[in-house]
Amino acid sequence: MTKVLNPFMDVAPAVQDALAAGKPVVALESTIITHGMPYPDNSRMAGDVEAIIIAEGAVPATIAIVDGRLKIGLSAQEREALAQVKGAMKLSRADLAFALSEGRTGGTTVAATMLAAHLAGIKVFATGGIGGVHKGAELSFDISADLEELGRTPVIVVSAGAKAILDIEKTLEVLETKGVPVVVYGADVLPAFWSRQSQIKAPLRLDTPDAIAKFQAARDAIGVVGGMLITNPIPEASEIPAEIMSGYISEAIARATKKGVTGKAVTPFLLSELLDITKGESLKANIALVENNARLAAKIAVSLVKATR
Amino acid sequence: MTKVLNPFMDVAPAVQDALAAGKPVVALESTIITHGMPYPDNSRMAGDVEAIIIAEGAVPATIAIVDGRLKIGLSAQEREALAQVKGAMKLSRADLAFALSEGRTGGTTVAATMLAAHLAGIKVFATGGIGGVHKGAELSFDISADLEELGRTPVIVVSAGAKAILDIEKTLEVLETKGVPVVVYGADVLPAFWSRQSQIKAPLRLDTPDAIAKFQAARDAIGVVGGMLITNPIPEASEIPAEIMSGYISEAIARATKKGVTGKAVTPFLLSELLDITKGESLKANIALVENNARLAAKIAVSLVKATR
Amino acid sequence: MTKVLNPFMDVAPAVQDALAAGKPVVALESTIITHGMPYPDNSRMAGDVEAIIIAEGAVPATIAIVDGRLKIGLSAQEREALAQVKGAMKLSRADLAFALSEGRTGGTTVAATMLAAHLAGIKVFATGGIGGVHKGAELSFDISADLEELGRTPVIVVSAGAKAILDIEKTLEVLETKGVPVVVYGADVLPAFWSRQSQIKAPLRLDTPDAIAKFQAARDAIGVVGGMLITNPIPEASEIPAEIMSGYISEAIARATKKGVTGKAVTPFLLSELLDITKGESLKANIALVENNARLAAKIAVSLVKATR
Ligand SMILES: [Mn+2]
Ligand SMILES: [Mn+2]
Ligand SMILES: [Mn+2]
Repeated sequence: MTKVLNPFMDVAPAVQDALAAGKPVVALESTIITHGMPYPDNSRMAGDVEAIIIAEGAVPATIAIVDGRLKIGLSAQEREALAQVKGAMKLSRADLAFALSEGRTGGTTVAATMLAAHLAGIKVFATGGIGGVHKGAELSFDISADLEELGRTPVIVVSAGAKAILDIEKTLEVLETKGVPVVVYGADVLPAFWSRQSQIKAPLRLDTPDAIAKFQAARDAIGVVGGMLITNPIPEASEIPAEIMSGYISEAIARATKKGVTGKAVTPFLLSELLDITKGESLKANIALVENNARLAAKIAVSLVKATR
Repeated sequence: MTKVLNPFMDVAPAVQDALAAGKPVVALESTIITHGMPYPDNSRMAGDVEAIIIAEGAVPATIAIVDGRLKIGLSAQEREALAQVKGAMKLSRADLAFALSEGRTGGTTVAATMLAAHLAGIKVFATGGIGGVHKGAELSFDISADLEELGRTPVIVVSAGAKAILDIEKTLEVLETKGVPVVVYGADVLPAFWSRQSQIKAPLRLDTPDAIAKFQAARDAIGVVGGMLITNPIPEASEIPAEIMSGYISEAIARATKKGVTGKAVTPFLLSELLDITKGESLKANIALVENNARLAAKIAVSLVKATR
Repeated sequence: MTKVLNPFMDVAPAVQDALAAGKPVVALESTIITHGMPYPDNSRMAGDVEAIIIAEGAVPATIAIVDGRLKIGLSAQEREALAQVKGAMKLSRADLAFALSEGRTGGTTVAATMLAAHLAGIKVFATGGIGGVHKGAELSFDISADLEELGRTPVIVVSAGAKAILDIEKTLEVLETKGVPVVVYGADVLPAFWSRQSQIKAPLRLDTPDAIAKFQAARDAIGVVGGMLITNPIPEASEIPAEIMSGYISEAIARATKKGVTGKAVTPFLLSELLDITKGESLKANIALVENNARLAAKIAVSLVKATR
């Protein structure tokens, strides 16, 4: 109960009830709402994803900072307002508390959502794709804080892999160095966000939510700290094959280089350019994969509850 | 009281009293004394900095290892002895305890000072500039332990930025990856140690000690571990503009390369060469910025005490 | 006693008794058995190493996963079975618990052995050489999880240095960044696994097991988390001088490149090729250095027990 009494945190009633009763809860990030998709697609996606989690028997908790309050679960009205807000911050571990003390509004990245989910007692979190090692990081040192967070915060993150605009091979190397398990759900090859298959062998493979829950229970039992990354291939009907997608990504990166886009602005810029280059196909795929991940995350949350009973 | 009873630690009476009474304390590092400035400038600077902190209503605690004792606060006599000692070690996280068990004497780097300050219960620490990613680190992997320490130890470090002999852009990237907030005090552009302005936009900006204390309180409340880096631009009267300074730095690096200086010896060597190249201007600037940081650190320590009341 | 009651862990009776009585115990890894040496050399080596530890007055605890059980200490029969098993996993922090929940068998790397040793309450661990930064890591980002583990898990690891197939200079830089002490035992130059001397100066030097125990006690007293790396030069009679060995290593790496070997398979492949290239000399040296490390680890474990009394 201490956590619910956190002076900066508002836990939505449904989430609070579920946590108190030990029922399954799935956290959701909000950078995808504030920086990842245009309005009104972001709003519709956010609502649909919550509905999917509820249909699977779990409670959704979209996490965001609104006017300096850490929201664990948004009402439909709050979600809609966030989907339309201008100038929201993109918040990671470094600046999450800054938005609180300065009364700001922002979307939470994977790192910040993990941190907040853990604070609230939520063990599973669905997203589109994690941040990772940027292409060219051997010279720029541009590596997402998401990887460090996976190395230390005990939350299961369900994704479609690292966003394919990143250097996936280097991202995997860093995760291995940091001791983060990378599990491919039901396949032998790592997915690549918009595509079902990368060229990279699955580090680990599990085929059921129960097996994932069992793995997590073993991690807890032997005291291995840190998160687990589940990579869930996008549904076949919605994928853009990797050989096609890689051309689009090169084009988007060329545009970013030309415009001199750097830092935290890179990922939102590339996603927006891909929307243009693919005439909307990348957005459709992105929505399909997020929904797919929400469904799996809810099943894992249900399995975790069963496993601890 | 447990901490004060640490078998290796001597806490100076004034520091002990202040900590027991919950009064503001500012930690100070000692590598700047043993490796950063020549005698007697180092001694005078160390005394002046302590006086500034006292004038601001806080208690200074210079941290060092003397003959195998971890000193939290030095008497004027101990400070003078340290300023004259020959062959002191330059101690970081890896070898701090080595100096204790082997009965050695050494100056503490930012990393070791943070660790010791935290052990003693001190929350704010003033330095000149932190260590970071060395130029050429994409090939040498030479990255200061200060960055890891900022990622894990909850101390506010007040600096004039990373020492400008480093790769400041890469240093910022690593800090972002590790989730360390980098706050510029009262400006929109990151300072560059001897210069008020780098080419780099401020990741975060705060304008008052109270705002910094409030940010720290929010971090504590949501359980974000690790330190915070405050970068405080050098006073205008004392700065060496970045476009002039960068030529001097290139010259100093050329000398280091020529002499084959590597490892822990690089930073002290470059600082000493810059003293020669700038005919003492770099040292004057260094002293001015340290004093400026001590003043701000004391104000933050006072604000932190107010905030927790 | 909680630890012994871990649902996934079997602690051998002799180990359990020693831990309960506060007697010296030395952990041993098992990747050297499953992936590091051919049968029957691996089996003979594993038995000899345990005998050496017993002769020094400590209890050996070889750590491995057998059919989903975390074994802390193997019987002679279990050790022999592990030495002959086919298809064992090579387990690090990321997948140790995966082997538990999936009922698999595997050898534990330095990282996984540290984690398991710490869980069981064992403070010293002997191995051949640690993993580290791979040659070419500035482009591949291939860095062993052993270095992260040394940065966080409080176990003393006794080795003959990093395996010399790695980039030793970069490995040292990463250890310094992570605050891990690297102690050379009785010499001023870092050893290079099969060779007594590298070109690299010892970061720290200690000459007796008691001095190492004293250093560890100081680390504990001031709350420095993480491991310590002891590097113990191979006995003179068994070394292959560095200038000769480096040619062999280049040849082995050329073979790996030609065959496209990557990831976790690289180290076992290189060790196996070196066995061929050196006509068995590298294996003899490897066995000699492991025995030498076991002896020193046992002496350190004895010193640690003395120090805490
Ligand atoms: Mn970045
Ligand atoms: Mn360095
Ligand atoms: Mn690797």
